[in-house]
Amino acid sequence: MGGEAEKWVLMVTARTPTNIAVIKYWGKRDETLILPINDSISVTLDPSHLCTTTTVSVSPSFDQDRMWLNGKEISLQGGRFQSCLREIRARAQDVEDKKKGIKINKEDWQKLNLHIASYNNFPTAAGLASSAAGLACLVFSLAKLMNLKEDNSQLSAIARQGSGSACRSLYGGFVKWCMGKEENGSDSLAVQLADEKHWDELVIIIAVVSAQQKETSSTSGMRDTVETSALIEHRAKEVVPKRITEMEGAIQNRDFATFTRLACTDSNQFHAVCLDTYPPIFYMNDTSHRIISCVEKWNRAEETPQVAYTFDAGPNAVMIARNRKTAALLLQRLLYNFPPQSDTDLDSYIIGDKSILQDAGIKDMKDVEALTAPPEVKDKIPTEKSKGDVSYFICTRPGGGPVVLSDETHALLNPLTGLPK
Amino acid sequence: MGGEAEKWVLMVTARTPTNIAVIKYWGKRDETLILPINDSISVTLDPSHLCTTTTVSVSPSFDQDRMWLNGKEISLQGGRFQSCLREIRARAQDVEDKKKGIKINKEDWQKLNLHIASYNNFPTAAGLASSAAGLACLVFSLAKLMNLKEDNSQLSAIARQGSGSACRSLYGGFVKWCMGKEENGSDSLAVQLADEKHWDELVIIIAVVSAQQKETSSTSGMRDTVETSALIEHRAKEVVPKRITEMEGAIQNRDFATFTRLACTDSNQFHAVCLDTYPPIFYMNDTSHRIISCVEKWNRAEETPQVAYTFDAGPNAVMIARNRKTAALLLQRLLYNFPPQSDTDLDSYIIGDKSILQDAGIKDMKDVEALTAPPEVKDKIPTEKSKGDVSYFICTRPGGGPVVLSDETHALLNPLTGLPK
Repeated sequence: MGGEAEKWVLMVTARTPTNIAVIKYWGKRDETLILPINDSISVTLDPSHLCTTTTVSVSPSFDQDRMWLNGKEISLQGGRFQSCLREIRARAQDVEDKKKGIKINKEDWQKLNLHIASYNNFPTAAGLASSAAGLACLVFSLAKLMNLKEDNSQLSAIARQGSGSACRSLYGGFVKWCMGKEENGSDSLAVQLADEKHWDELVIIIAVVSAQQKETSSTSGMRDTVETSALIEHRAKEVVPKRITEMEGAIQNRDFATFTRLACTDSNQFHAVCLDTYPPIFYMNDTSHRIISCVEKWNRAEETPQVAYTFDAGPNAVMIARNRKTAALLLQRLLYNFPPQSDTDLDSYIIGDKSILQDAGIKDMKDVEALTAPPEVKDKIPTEKSKGDVSYFICTRPGGGPVVLSDETHALLNPLTGLPK
Repeated sequence: MGGEAEKWVLMVTARTPTNIAVIKYWGKRDETLILPINDSISVTLDPSHLCTTTTVSVSPSFDQDRMWLNGKEISLQGGRFQSCLREIRARAQDVEDKKKGIKINKEDWQKLNLHIASYNNFPTAAGLASSAAGLACLVFSLAKLMNLKEDNSQLSAIARQGSGSACRSLYGGFVKWCMGKEENGSDSLAVQLADEKHWDELVIIIAVVSAQQKETSSTSGMRDTVETSALIEHRAKEVVPKRITEMEGAIQNRDFATFTRLACTDSNQFHAVCLDTYPPIFYMNDTSHRIISCVEKWNRAEETPQVAYTFDAGPNAVMIARNRKTAALLLQRLLYNFPPQSDTDLDSYIIGDKSILQDAGIKDMKDVEALTAPPEVKDKIPTEKSKGDVSYFICTRPGGGPVVLSDETHALLNPLTGLPK
């Protein structure tokens, strides 16, 4: 170890996207290693709108591993954090920063303590896969700090042990988590099917739905499903493998109709096996159902599907529109059916890529109030519009994978003290 | 044919119960004959609270078949009515009423026209299986009028062609609809597993839940499920047969714990395959989910299950309590979570067997307002109590099968004119 009087702090800041599964992961065959019972496929979301930024730092002056999430210190004692830290340290390499006069030999990493700060640019508790982005970012940034030789796919197998779906956040675009066959989990990792430029017409709108009921965590929910559902094994063994092959083809060929059919039916089947769990698990609520009905009615009225939907372990809808024009038409429909509460301004009700709102010709609340029923709604009786059923919408698109932010202004830790800025 | 100057009217009035499936029927293998893809088991509900009364009459003066439902004339042209009428007429026998001096030879039934009047003692549109009771009552009363030799099981195979689940309303107590193997449907009929006295402790409470969305009809819903669900075949072939055997045993042994587990999981699985249909079908809503959570929480807090729940093709909950004491405790919980709207009086909010309300110690709205959270609710934060989510509750029990009402005061048709009274 080098440096002047052990006062140095070495750090790396990285940004990692979140992802949404279009063929779902639900059920583990190994709880400790987090090995799934089927492959899954996801779309990576644009990190400009949904991402985690993490700064990892090391210094001989740190007396223990510490972590801060969104500015608040949290415990690193959980088995999942510990798994990731252990796996990364075991692969650490020599690191030299000649400018700062620092040299760390790979054996030293076992003794050096870490400070980690992580920040989500979206609400953590909103059910938007914050743990996936978070664990992926932790693993990616530590791998850079410790100079790991592993590629992102190999890193994904480490992130997987922190949070299953985190492994899919190691790549941008379209990603497959291969369940693998090995008992030690070494082949249960993510591969990129196509990057975000391959199918760059797609636009994603997320409805963050107000929830009243406390949700079942994914971890305990999928355990209960595997233990009690009479349908989950059939899904994992017979249904999903075919859908994975079909979905890979749909992505390869930018076949939106097939993509939509598979994404929607697989989301619905995931929620079906949750309902087949005992006691049953409900993640979707009446608002989720109404969003599905709105999209289904429109898709069926058109010659080809316009929008795919998918729901994770919560009531939020993730809608994927075939292009910008469709996204603008979707946003009109969503605002017609789910207007904001009177005290909410449009600017905080539609966040992310606000240009979609412009495309939809909506500048202010008057434009929202002037929206009329879309043509596919036959009975022009105004449907019950409960304001406040949706908290807000996020407009985004498929996006890129993890990146190192070399500009120190992005760092979440003070480069001199290694404490949160 | 006899009688003075063709002026006679001969009639029969019968009453038939509705039924609730505890192992569900969902999916046909033959749409015309109404042959199911799996066996099902139901509990017959006490006709004092839920039944259809039907008067069928014949007279040489009738110039066409006519039918009135709840006082309003309806068409008999539907294929399902016609199937039942054709099958019954084909089995008609000689009928003689010496007192009235009437003699009808079996060949005459093909030429004689019928007047039919039917009345439900519960709201027809509330999703309470009115068509099951109605078709069963039509077939049963016509069979009596035309002196058929067939027993109730053979009659059930005719009622089945009017409405699948109607076949299970030909018996009281606990009834199994055997799917059968024959292509012509002759062995797809109902058999009684046990009569209503076999397990007479059970108490049933039905929550009629206010629905906002228009529901998918069972007929089109189950067709869509069979055509699009990737799970329905596995359910019908692998899951249901085992549950049928287990449920027969549970009923035989009055094993409430097994009965509850099977009834709840099978209801949930039926709704799971609806969700796995494309586009998905939602019959339960947020209120249904809250009722399930309330029951599940209580069942898990007790050493053995207290209440089973099951939902048909709508949001209404049918809850089966192990005995009267449990039913009173259930009613307290239901009224605590789902109080009536301020303008509703208790007497119209709890209908049917009101003695359960007395057992629960509830005399008026003050008693409802004084209810406290049940012990199994840990966080004593009052949950959101949306008044009006439940329209009303019906307290009832397992009941008997069809009966002829020989007292002419029950007749719905005028004995002289054959027209509605």
